[in-house]
Amino acid sequence: MCKLTSCQYDRWKPKDDVMPEECGVFGIFMDDQRYDPAEAAYVGLYALQHRGQESAGIAVTDGKDVKFHKGMGLCSEVFKDNLGKLLGGHIGIGHVRYSTTGDSRAGNAQPLVMSYRGGRLALAHNGNLINSSVLRERLEEEGSIFQTTLDTEVMANLIARQSKEGILKAITAMMRVVKGSYALVIMTQDELIAVRDPLGIRPLALGKLDNNYVVASESCAFDAIDAEFVRDIRPGEIVVVNKNGLKSYQAQSSMETALCVFEYVYFARPDSDIDGISVYRSRENMGTRLAQAFPIEADLVSDVPDSATPAASGYAAESGIPYAKALAKNRYVGRTFIQPSQALRERGVKLKLNAMKRNVHGKRLILIDDSIVRGTTSRKIVEMLRLAGAREVHMLISSPPVVCPCFFGIDTPSHDQLIGSKNSVEEIRRIIGADTLHYLSIDDLLKTVEGAGCNFCVGCFNGCYPIDIRKALKETEQLDLKTIE
Amino acid sequence: MCKLTSCQYDRWKPKDDVMPEECGVFGIFMDDQRYDPAEAAYVGLYALQHRGQESAGIAVTDGKDVKFHKGMGLCSEVFKDNLGKLLGGHIGIGHVRYSTTGDSRAGNAQPLVMSYRGGRLALAHNGNLINSSVLRERLEEEGSIFQTTLDTEVMANLIARQSKEGILKAITAMMRVVKGSYALVIMTQDELIAVRDPLGIRPLALGKLDNNYVVASESCAFDAIDAEFVRDIRPGEIVVVNKNGLKSYQAQSSMETALCVFEYVYFARPDSDIDGISVYRSRENMGTRLAQAFPIEADLVSDVPDSATPAASGYAAESGIPYAKALAKNRYVGRTFIQPSQALRERGVKLKLNAMKRNVHGKRLILIDDSIVRGTTSRKIVEMLRLAGAREVHMLISSPPVVCPCFFGIDTPSHDQLIGSKNSVEEIRRIIGADTLHYLSIDDLLKTVEGAGCNFCVGCFNGCYPIDIRKALKETEQLDLKTIE
Amino acid sequence: MCKLTSCQYDRWKPKDDVMPEECGVFGIFMDDQRYDPAEAAYVGLYALQHRGQESAGIAVTDGKDVKFHKGMGLCSEVFKDNLGKLLGGHIGIGHVRYSTTGDSRAGNAQPLVMSYRGGRLALAHNGNLINSSVLRERLEEEGSIFQTTLDTEVMANLIARQSKEGILKAITAMMRVVKGSYALVIMTQDELIAVRDPLGIRPLALGKLDNNYVVASESCAFDAIDAEFVRDIRPGEIVVVNKNGLKSYQAQSSMETALCVFEYVYFARPDSDIDGISVYRSRENMGTRLAQAFPIEADLVSDVPDSATPAASGYAAESGIPYAKALAKNRYVGRTFIQPSQALRERGVKLKLNAMKRNVHGKRLILIDDSIVRGTTSRKIVEMLRLAGAREVHMLISSPPVVCPCFFGIDTPSHDQLIGSKNSVEEIRRIIGADTLHYLSIDDLLKTVEGAGCNFCVGCFNGCYPIDIRKALKETEQLDLKTIE
Amino acid sequence: MCKLTSCQYDRWKPKDDVMPEECGVFGIFMDDQRYDPAEAAYVGLYALQHRGQESAGIAVTDGKDVKFHKGMGLCSEVFKDNLGKLLGGHIGIGHVRYSTTGDSRAGNAQPLVMSYRGGRLALAHNGNLINSSVLRERLEEEGSIFQTTLDTEVMANLIARQSKEGILKAITAMMRVVKGSYALVIMTQDELIAVRDPLGIRPLALGKLDNNYVVASESCAFDAIDAEFVRDIRPGEIVVVNKNGLKSYQAQSSMETALCVFEYVYFARPDSDIDGISVYRSRENMGTRLAQAFPIEADLVSDVPDSATPAASGYAAESGIPYAKALAKNRYVGRTFIQPSQALRERGVKLKLNAMKRNVHGKRLILIDDSIVRGTTSRKIVEMLRLAGAREVHMLISSPPVVCPCFFGIDTPSHDQLIGSKNSVEEIRRIIGADTLHYLSIDDLLKTVEGAGCNFCVGCFNGCYPIDIRKALKETEQLDLKTIE
Repeated sequence: MCKLTSCQYDRWKPKDDVMPEECGVFGIFMDDQRYDPAEAAYVGLYALQHRGQESAGIAVTDGKDVKFHKGMGLCSEVFKDNLGKLLGGHIGIGHVRYSTTGDSRAGNAQPLVMSYRGGRLALAHNGNLINSSVLRERLEEEGSIFQTTLDTEVMANLIARQSKEGILKAITAMMRVVKGSYALVIMTQDELIAVRDPLGIRPLALGKLDNNYVVASESCAFDAIDAEFVRDIRPGEIVVVNKNGLKSYQAQSSMETALCVFEYVYFARPDSDIDGISVYRSRENMGTRLAQAFPIEADLVSDVPDSATPAASGYAAESGIPYAKALAKNRYVGRTFIQPSQALRERGVKLKLNAMKRNVHGKRLILIDDSIVRGTTSRKIVEMLRLAGAREVHMLISSPPVVCPCFFGIDTPSHDQLIGSKNSVEEIRRIIGADTLHYLSIDDLLKTVEGAGCNFCVGCFNGCYPIDIRKALKETEQLDLKTIE
Repeated sequence: MCKLTSCQYDRWKPKDDVMPEECGVFGIFMDDQRYDPAEAAYVGLYALQHRGQESAGIAVTDGKDVKFHKGMGLCSEVFKDNLGKLLGGHIGIGHVRYSTTGDSRAGNAQPLVMSYRGGRLALAHNGNLINSSVLRERLEEEGSIFQTTLDTEVMANLIARQSKEGILKAITAMMRVVKGSYALVIMTQDELIAVRDPLGIRPLALGKLDNNYVVASESCAFDAIDAEFVRDIRPGEIVVVNKNGLKSYQAQSSMETALCVFEYVYFARPDSDIDGISVYRSRENMGTRLAQAFPIEADLVSDVPDSATPAASGYAAESGIPYAKALAKNRYVGRTFIQPSQALRERGVKLKLNAMKRNVHGKRLILIDDSIVRGTTSRKIVEMLRLAGAREVHMLISSPPVVCPCFFGIDTPSHDQLIGSKNSVEEIRRIIGADTLHYLSIDDLLKTVEGAGCNFCVGCFNGCYPIDIRKALKETEQLDLKTIE
Repeated sequence: MCKLTSCQYDRWKPKDDVMPEECGVFGIFMDDQRYDPAEAAYVGLYALQHRGQESAGIAVTDGKDVKFHKGMGLCSEVFKDNLGKLLGGHIGIGHVRYSTTGDSRAGNAQPLVMSYRGGRLALAHNGNLINSSVLRERLEEEGSIFQTTLDTEVMANLIARQSKEGILKAITAMMRVVKGSYALVIMTQDELIAVRDPLGIRPLALGKLDNNYVVASESCAFDAIDAEFVRDIRPGEIVVVNKNGLKSYQAQSSMETALCVFEYVYFARPDSDIDGISVYRSRENMGTRLAQAFPIEADLVSDVPDSATPAASGYAAESGIPYAKALAKNRYVGRTFIQPSQALRERGVKLKLNAMKRNVHGKRLILIDDSIVRGTTSRKIVEMLRLAGAREVHMLISSPPVVCPCFFGIDTPSHDQLIGSKNSVEEIRRIIGADTLHYLSIDDLLKTVEGAGCNFCVGCFNGCYPIDIRKALKETEQLDLKTIE
Repeated sequence: MCKLTSCQYDRWKPKDDVMPEECGVFGIFMDDQRYDPAEAAYVGLYALQHRGQESAGIAVTDGKDVKFHKGMGLCSEVFKDNLGKLLGGHIGIGHVRYSTTGDSRAGNAQPLVMSYRGGRLALAHNGNLINSSVLRERLEEEGSIFQTTLDTEVMANLIARQSKEGILKAITAMMRVVKGSYALVIMTQDELIAVRDPLGIRPLALGKLDNNYVVASESCAFDAIDAEFVRDIRPGEIVVVNKNGLKSYQAQSSMETALCVFEYVYFARPDSDIDGISVYRSRENMGTRLAQAFPIEADLVSDVPDSATPAASGYAAESGIPYAKALAKNRYVGRTFIQPSQALRERGVKLKLNAMKRNVHGKRLILIDDSIVRGTTSRKIVEMLRLAGAREVHMLISSPPVVCPCFFGIDTPSHDQLIGSKNSVEEIRRIIGADTLHYLSIDDLLKTVEGAGCNFCVGCFNGCYPIDIRKALKETEQLDLKTIE
């Protein structure tokens, strides 16, 4: 079942110029003209902002022309002076992107807007293709040029090449070739199309605003514009919305789907439901299960704000130990904060988190966090709490240790920076200086999302990826681009 | 004891051009040159950012010259490209201001930097003078000009006029004349001076970074730069720090001091201690007392994020009713959000808060908030929760109804917009649509801050102000500016 | 000889989405590492800024990676905070673009940077292809996508498709297919390549900075970086510079070349030499010939600043009539000037030009301008001079009437806005209100550039274009993209 | 007659914190509401932009409130997004300031807007007081504070102190105390007031737009808004415009006035008339007189663009030697140009000026410039022309050598940087490398402005200042501020 018994990071590491894309996507087909697609997309992206703060973009069409604007920054900044010129039109799609690396470029902002044989096309993509580098090379050999480093551009080229018999056939052909995760929203001059990869690795949901269809990465975007959640887009499904209504096509299928379980642990917003499961409830449940698995005598349960708060609630309720804040968070940590000089940093400047001395002093503390990546932050927090007078600090993590990289869109650091890939739990405990350290088990984690309309990818926890990466790359290399259709 | 039996808003309303100043102040005298004052002030202001997001400013001196920079926006924005030019020097003061009205002006940013008989002077002020308009008129009659609408400029003029015998005498003379609240940080070319009004209405604390004295509106600013909290500046005290160390002068005294209780209810950061009381603990205690006073049968206790969270914790612990989130908050609500058009707004666009349907559906809900000002937000929240399926919504407020305006620095809306000033609790309940509505009593509120090193002003809850405003104005009018000293 | 006896504007009008590109290009191969290519490109573009103020861009390579930055605005604005990150490397190319239409887009800024089979490629183009729309369609049919509306992207796709046997063959193949004007600078990871179209319609020159080769639209860019002018790139020539030195290839040839004569009349900088002729001298000569052809009794010769100044000098010297300024120009007319309201505009607000009353009053005036496009400005100027007291205003134009559109890169307005295409000289005179109006004849104009190393295109003056547009389009439609190479 | 026989720079050098103010001022009283004062001020400042590019500001009143906006940069930049909020109202004044030093501050932008006993007041000032430092000290002793380093703030304080009997008396009293140059525009809530110093050192003119009075530093601002020039404001005159019309008061008088002759030489716009003399004509005349005084055998007369162009015209006409451009100027030299690195600068990068090789090669050249300050630019230009092949370069300056500093508002460098103060003409010639060098004599210069309605200050050329600075300072020190009125 496990396609890869151990993660062998270095061999299948994505090429340097291909960045993992943690993103949010949105699309709306406005049939009744009551609201403006650009405005709805703006509000939707605003609700999806937690999925990406690096860049934002919206493209709209009125059936004739396509207008778009995209830029670096939060969507409130990017569209501050630019939303007005996108008004009018009946279809709109939008995209926000997560800041994963420093060398992110303005040219990589989405949606990707282009002309092709069939007219104008705009694409917004969340996910990561594992064979995009090989596909780029193959397409370049055929004479294609690439102006970005986005997987989206690879998919766009594949679609354009196969578009002789229409966009639907082209998308189907593209899906046969690309391997990896994609929640893809496409806008033609008269259609809104949503595509989810056969494994359903990234979430994608369908909603309705009166008679107008909406798609979004998470259901919280529907709430934001007061649209109704209809259902999740199925793995391998293509949904086409036009003036005749909605049609669904099951372009690909997979025996076992593999939704990224990290969406529940950390990435998604707590008020979203994904594939039938409430993100908040699953996190609360992670805390409950931590309490059952690791009962600890303590005076206080607390959390590292903000994503671990529901798990801490769950632990407190299950254990009967009172919940209180151990750490105060500065709500005004902007993205442009000037780093203090060496002298002040050594001094221990506290910019984001501050220990609540009065709550912590003399107390035995249970601290819940969602994950430990490099360990640096955890070590600082434990130290800060001890200086504030905590008698004991017990660290509980609401997910298993991350031991392998993600190839499907979550930005995990390289192998040697991943504290979990080289150290035992006991070693990590010593590094971060906690009295005890416990992780939720994979089994317990999967129980918190039981009943979902899908299976899950836990590759980062055990190296079992839903795709045999080696095989997929080999197949792509042998592929004859001319014969696919 | 109550100086004013009922609030008579319209008669003593501050003149239109005098805005209430909700602010944060910071000052540091860097004796040992290990850290940079501008940088320390920046980090300190960063921690005080919750006290003011409209403008920020820092002034520093090296004993010869005074350099400063101030501008509109968060301190991370204002100093993004401008901190470097303030480096060097041995004293620094800083200021952040709250956005109270739309017509705020760049010219009103602080610190106020000026030349006077004694050299260069910079002032940063948190508070509100009730007799500043009269004093301005009196000073104008004497030939003074005013370039801002700040109370600070009035104080600066009074100090300059009385400065023949030194700054200390000048400040003492100024304190005899001005009436109201002030936590004032002053920088000369060789001294850092901190002044708190005789009633101690606004908080001001003293700290130490190694051998260097620091002052700040709240203790959380000390934690940020890893300074130690020493003590609160006393009401009526002047603290002077120079190269010879610290000296304290009790310039004025008052039988009953009157710290603003709203600092605990809403304004201060939970990890600060003010006059001996932990802000977080007092809020938790407000919840406990709400639970004791108003036991309600319900399935869930929740909060309106973020300042009501500790009170909700307190209620949950005391009542035994489980705590869970009923509302999800969008963490990326920037200050430049484009308001959606009428159509979308009527639709019920949810930008900041979203109901957690899964938690709320079918539940009897206790919702804790810190205050109700206009009632508009509360009504929307109750409606949102009902639409999400809440069976009952019980609203509990962790402070008494605000029935009177504040003359001492908290931005309360005008009388006719204040829902508590014209409506009974039952009427408010009906307006906001809650099943029940309860407010914490003044007595209970004061119990949550019992043991503090001060008395409290609860004027906004009962109209009993610590200063007889009418009398103060009359006295000021009759004052001979030439004879004070 | 004349390929088109009359201009038939409407039939061959370029498609709406293809904007004429009036641009400046620059490239440098820095063999000896003494100067930085990005910096040299910046200074070069600065000197070419008159050729385009809308957007600017620079791309550089160090042999491995390609870095680039481009944006809207003057190069001083675009690179203000962004030149530093381009430093290092050994090849650099740059581009400035003229603001021709309001709907210009950031995405259309050049250089176009891309990946293709051969690695990384950057292109900067000045000119206009007449068959680019057809070529785009043909390429789209083959599966290509287009992300800009630039001719450059068409050329890039053609090059990429033919690149199996190397870039030189690919460029040669591209040149066989595209029709129109192009001064093209290309950067690979190890070569700088300059290409001029077979007719030599746009200028392109070769220079040397010590041992390092430089190419630029005009020789003034060489002066700016203290490089030496070597020679003009020949029509149809490909120049390849790499670490082995320079090689030249005559890829295409044309019996009669056709340099755009408007470069001398208006577009180029006076201190540039193009194809052997000094721009300043040719303009002075236009004035001399105007004086010979149209001797007028007057008190004063003046010019519409700034490009007509040399012609006015020439007229004054030939006629003996003294030269003096009749119009003062505001040197601070920025691009962001707020248009005054209707009331003030009707009043006759003078933002850019002001009549010199003392010089003009009571005088018979000869006013030289380089061209009349719509006639609006000329009418205002004549009126302004009369109001300032001019007794007579004789308008002389240093070029013939523009009667036909340009298909090769000069931004002429549409047919119905072109005053010369619908009116006789006498009618124009009446419209602009001058006492007399004379244009330089085509023959006289060509005499001013006699001896140049090329022939000239005067299509906008007589409709005789150097390419049979109708035939070129038909050939392109019938072209089999698969067989060219 | 000469109040100071030699300039003794160091003794009376203005204090470091008092910057010379080279500025432009504008004011309008809009009686008939046909145009908007803010808009008119904007257009007026736009025409005066040559007098100051560092900062710009406008203040307007509608009789009740005063609104203003000011900022660093060109007026087109400063008001880009800010003019709209100033619309409405019936009086407006504006100010532009020249960039004289690097440490210019935003807080020093004008108009200075303030409240005083009489209501709201706004002041815009061009000029420089020689006794402002002493006056500041005296005012500080009386308890005044200063928030800027502007002379304007000194004048504002003096006016406020004397304002018991109205603004007119207050201004008169202020004029008795301040010594130096001032063209001052003042706005109260219902009056526009213009004041020119008794010596008339800075220009100030009165115009009319229909029935609405306008004042401006130069008449070109009237042309810009299509207002009519009425007359120059007289030295020592106060002009008061209100709804009852215009009243004039001769507050002070001086036997010999002293308009700054440098306004004609360099500072003013050529299309302005000042005190009856056309700036353009005077410059042309400077050229004529140079030709008469220094006949030189040469092939070409040229100019250093742009202010020396009329003088070069005059020389050419008088001498019969043809005029042609020797230097081309880059019209796009922005204020944010990034300085090239050392390597390129040593190479001789030409950013602003380029020699016209074809015109210059083998020629004997006469080059006219308006002045030589440090000599650095002149040396570079001569070198550039020789490298371009000039056989001889004869430099002629249309003003005498600057040997003394200016105390009245022109930004001359300190004594030791002034090439003319330490070197003979022959020594300067050698330094700049010219074949010959000649300056216009003071007598000849004064002839070019003969017939003006004023006398002239030529202090920078001969050290004879119109005010005995030593005496003025002593008098100010002995002044009793309480007794003036």
